[in-house]
Amino acid sequence: MRILYHLPLSPFSRKIRLVLSEKRLPFELRVEKVWERRPEYLELNPAGTVPTLIEDHGLVVPDSGVIGEYLEEAYPDTPLLGATLAERIEVRRLVAWFDGKFAAEVTRNLVGEKHMKRLLGRGNPDAGALRTGYTAIKHHLEYVGWLSETRRWLAGASISLADFAAAAHFSALDYIGDVDWTVAPAAKDWYARMKSRPSFRGVLADRVPGVIPPEHYADLDF
Amino acid sequence: MRILYHLPLSPFSRKIRLVLSEKRLPFELRVEKVWERRPEYLELNPAGTVPTLIEDHGLVVPDSGVIGEYLEEAYPDTPLLGATLAERIEVRRLVAWFDGKFAAEVTRNLVGEKHMKRLLGRGNPDAGALRTGYTAIKHHLEYVGWLSETRRWLAGASISLADFAAAAHFSALDYIGDVDWTVAPAAKDWYARMKSRPSFRGVLADRVPGVIPPEHYADLDF
Repeated sequence: MRILYHLPLSPFSRKIRLVLSEKRLPFELRVEKVWERRPEYLELNPAGTVPTLIEDHGLVVPDSGVIGEYLEEAYPDTPLLGATLAERIEVRRLVAWFDGKFAAEVTRNLVGEKHMKRLLGRGNPDAGALRTGYTAIKHHLEYVGWLSETRRWLAGASISLADFAAAAHFSALDYIGDVDWTVAPAAKDWYARMKSRPSFRGVLADRVPGVIPPEHYADLDF
Repeated sequence: MRILYHLPLSPFSRKIRLVLSEKRLPFELRVEKVWERRPEYLELNPAGTVPTLIEDHGLVVPDSGVIGEYLEEAYPDTPLLGATLAERIEVRRLVAWFDGKFAAEVTRNLVGEKHMKRLLGRGNPDAGALRTGYTAIKHHLEYVGWLSETRRWLAGASISLADFAAAAHFSALDYIGDVDWTVAPAAKDWYARMKSRPSFRGVLADRVPGVIPPEHYADLDF
């Protein structure tokens, strides 16, 4: 069985879980506590990050960006990167946007400070980081709202890796109650469409010990 | 003419300059002072980063990761991503390594603190950041040395985007005199091979106002 090493609230892991499900590729999840820096895991992924994918036949694919490109090349039947050069540029631009800019400005400041710091016993969240995160998420919600108003999906007419990258970050933030969906109704509509996809079920069923998600987290009509 | 918006010491820009030259695609450089957040530039690349590539026919390609994938798809004649799935995983893993991990641990702490901070008038380099950067670059030099000893090029038998990503970072650090090549002779041999490629000439000819590179910077027998 295909194995995905992950952490439940890692948006990078969630993105790949969504993509695997969307492509109907069965997999088994294994939690990897990356902070333990397990030597066997560092052999598979020297960067020590999650996710890492291990194929049935043994091929090791580390890094969510690398896995995203790999899955598209190995299993092109459900294409998620777009068809034309211009479409692929826009999909990849938005994946870089969410996994780079959004991750640094929002996810690290909120999930990082509130969840990971406690998990690792590294003290209380930094107030400045939280402020930065809450300010940034508003701008990003407005951007997602604007994209959703002007296009069917975030990168264009078809659902793509950009939608899964974005939804993965928002789902982790929603789990800790940090998404104010009233900021951008169009973003909320887009996220409701994402949540109602069968590929989303696994992510919505996640429960992290000691962190109770808000009631609307798994609610399809939130 | 194809245009590349860049900054001279940006390793992400340098990577794309090298790849364009390697693929024999002529281009014109335009310096983009990203900190000015020029509205016309933000239209092209909402993330406001360099590089951004503008094709003759007007196609806009932002973000060095996106440009790297785009150039491979649009101009496959000089392939730089590998042929098999396994090769492509390793090339992309190392590109992510240098543009993610190395950039955060080394380039940001050294080029960021010593060059960018001064350029932006944001005060003196932070001593802790410099220490972190100098410690990290040693480990990375050893890793590059180990890769070079076990493979012809960093990701395998053929030169690839991984070599250009790595060389782009090292060249920016070498410009400010921060690479101690004695740490890993095999890494030095690899970099000498990279420097002697015709595609490297433009990068070695760069001069940044107010920053004089060490004598060995452009020397092919350093």
